[in-house]
Amino acid sequence: MAVIGTGLIGTSVALAARRQGVTVFLSDRDPVAARTAAALGAGHVGPPAAPVDLAVIAVPPSQVAAVLAQTQANRLAVAYTDVASVKAGPEQAALSGAPDPERYVGGHPLAGREWSGPLAARAELFRGRKWVLTPSRVTSPDTLDRALRLVELAEAVPVVMRSHDHDAAVAVTSHVPHLVASLMAARLRDRPAGTSALAGQGLRDVTRIAGGDSRLWGDILRSNAPAVTGVLRELHADLSRLLPALDALAQPGHQDRDTGLRTLVDLLDRGRLGLAVIPGARPPKAPGDPRVRVPVAGRPGELARLVAATAGLDVIAEDADIDAAGDGDGGGNGDGGGDGDGDGLVVRFTVPPALADRMVAELRAAGWAAVREDAVPTHSGRDDGEDAALPV
Amino acid sequence: MAVIGTGLIGTSVALAARRQGVTVFLSDRDPVAARTAAALGAGHVGPPAAPVDLAVIAVPPSQVAAVLAQTQANRLAVAYTDVASVKAGPEQAALSGAPDPERYVGGHPLAGREWSGPLAARAELFRGRKWVLTPSRVTSPDTLDRALRLVELAEAVPVVMRSHDHDAAVAVTSHVPHLVASLMAARLRDRPAGTSALAGQGLRDVTRIAGGDSRLWGDILRSNAPAVTGVLRELHADLSRLLPALDALAQPGHQDRDTGLRTLVDLLDRGRLGLAVIPGARPPKAPGDPRVRVPVAGRPGELARLVAATAGLDVIAEDADIDAAGDGDGGGNGDGGGDGDGDGLVVRFTVPPALADRMVAELRAAGWAAVREDAVPTHSGRDDGEDAALPV
Repeated sequence: MAVIGTGLIGTSVALAARRQGVTVFLSDRDPVAARTAAALGAGHVGPPAAPVDLAVIAVPPSQVAAVLAQTQANRLAVAYTDVASVKAGPEQAALSGAPDPERYVGGHPLAGREWSGPLAARAELFRGRKWVLTPSRVTSPDTLDRALRLVELAEAVPVVMRSHDHDAAVAVTSHVPHLVASLMAARLRDRPAGTSALAGQGLRDVTRIAGGDSRLWGDILRSNAPAVTGVLRELHADLSRLLPALDALAQPGHQDRDTGLRTLVDLLDRGRLGLAVIPGARPPKAPGDPRVRVPVAGRPGELARLVAATAGLDVIAEDADIDAAGDGDGGGNGDGGGDGDGDGLVVRFTVPPALADRMVAELRAAGWAAVREDAVPTHSGRDDGEDAALPV
Repeated sequence: MAVIGTGLIGTSVALAARRQGVTVFLSDRDPVAARTAAALGAGHVGPPAAPVDLAVIAVPPSQVAAVLAQTQANRLAVAYTDVASVKAGPEQAALSGAPDPERYVGGHPLAGREWSGPLAARAELFRGRKWVLTPSRVTSPDTLDRALRLVELAEAVPVVMRSHDHDAAVAVTSHVPHLVASLMAARLRDRPAGTSALAGQGLRDVTRIAGGDSRLWGDILRSNAPAVTGVLRELHADLSRLLPALDALAQPGHQDRDTGLRTLVDLLDRGRLGLAVIPGARPPKAPGDPRVRVPVAGRPGELARLVAATAGLDVIAEDADIDAAGDGDGGGNGDGGGDGDGDGLVVRFTVPPALADRMVAELRAAGWAAVREDAVPTHSGRDDGEDAALPV
């Protein structure tokens, strides 16, 4: 294998390959960077004597096309891939200008660190991470296969998609988030002393990725500018609506305060809905999800005991709905209207369908009068009434 | 103690107080919420028979003033504080409308969870967190003292500041970050299938806080609208400059591409500088910081061995500067220009002043020819030359 560009990603690819026994030839336009990678055990500095199986071009997006054309002209390898965060531009350049476009497939491992350069490289950087491959209409099956073997060797998960789809996706999942983090972090300068003392984890999280290398990120964002501006323009439009809304809310008695509050809360709601799209996000309660209903006596600590009993189950106790207990709920004293400590409650946990029966069984075994409460079919009013009278 | 409003914060305050043996009276306009808090062991539902030592008003910012006026009229307590995220409005309302403004001090514990409501409450929510208190010009020393005892009881760290300074600070550290997270998360809806498959930790971090309760956050942002719009307007101005810059970069051959790239990289640089303001951020290398210089032979793995040797020290190996070794650097073969694997390198770690000598001693004990290299005084050119010839 040949690795051209021994920064964080190139050196990590080389280290991963070396660990599998692959011979790796390293080069970088900065000879010290290549020697640093070699001294880390990433391979040999210098060109191979004969074409290698695969060349990995690990340079910024705007330089991929030139490096591909040059290394193909030199017959460096049988197949070529790259690791840049933008894929349509390099593909287009390969189709129009590279000597052997069928021997090139775009690639983008979704991995990184907060440092750059070979010294930050890790052989395990790609383990379990997605690695996008974007074959063009002329990429040969052999070339795609060689790139897939690289992904496998790096213990990454291959994702094959079109270059334009990739660029549209990373604009919204990576490139605009980076700009948003920078726009926020830029606000932290030149504030009164004491401001940063109130910084918490929220601010840290929102701004963390703004710490990336400015020149590399400038290159990435420039190379994906059409897709990035599309998303950023939507954000700008939302912000342009938000500012007059907040202006109205800032002035007591302003005639547009109600509209302003609606605009503000609407944005917050849309943000919450957007979050649900992220894999691994806490799924919103689905209308059809079963619920497990547990009556609880109003005694101090009784509810804490129930929450503790759910700890081993895959259920978010913080999300439960709580109502006052009515007659027949067992746990309460049945008066249903007083405000003394003895008043009972009914807790309803929304749970994944697969969990409902097991949760009921485990809670019952622990002495709780739990029952499963499935979604009420809307075509029948009677079920609702029956449901409320279920024996516990 | 009385707690008015048994949501996440109010119930957590009550639980923390109960754990220290304090008697707590709970109330909420939603009786089920108060009974839920009581069933969690947070106290008794209902009003006390005589004024309590301290009333904690744990309602959204816009409702603090009304609750304060009403509870003071009812002589609920000797002193009053609140926990809202906005402080100037409640203070102004107390000064102009509360029966006993000298018995009120604003408060804001910097703590939260991604869930709301009493079921999410935790007695240890405030442990080690900052808790801002904002005495007004009339707040009595006794009132401030009672609030400070609450902070102590919750194991939080008190920070005393003016209400307007607090609001300006949280606008930039909390309120605008929340809106930025929402603006970004709102972009995730209605994207092509497969977009979210490319979501990584960066996107998760940038958008995480957008998951908060929309109505509560609408109230918070509305109550701090003047300070929030000030910061948001700066962000909007940056974004309005960024969009045409990216538009120019999106068009090959556009005359403003160079200017566009400068605008883009300038924003990214300002973001990086802003990050350095956050406490706990990796400090930027200071020009006066000492460096520890270690020559390394070009053998594969030799540099990895050095990096491993620094693992126990408080130094960021990823940040080291690396140069080619010249004559007299020991580790290299001295030819200084070839590209074979044998070429030596010189690694310079920038370290905290207190660490430099210990690091040199430990690396030397492990066989490395480490030397301390202090900042070169700018008034003398000779030191630089001498430095390069230091014996190793």
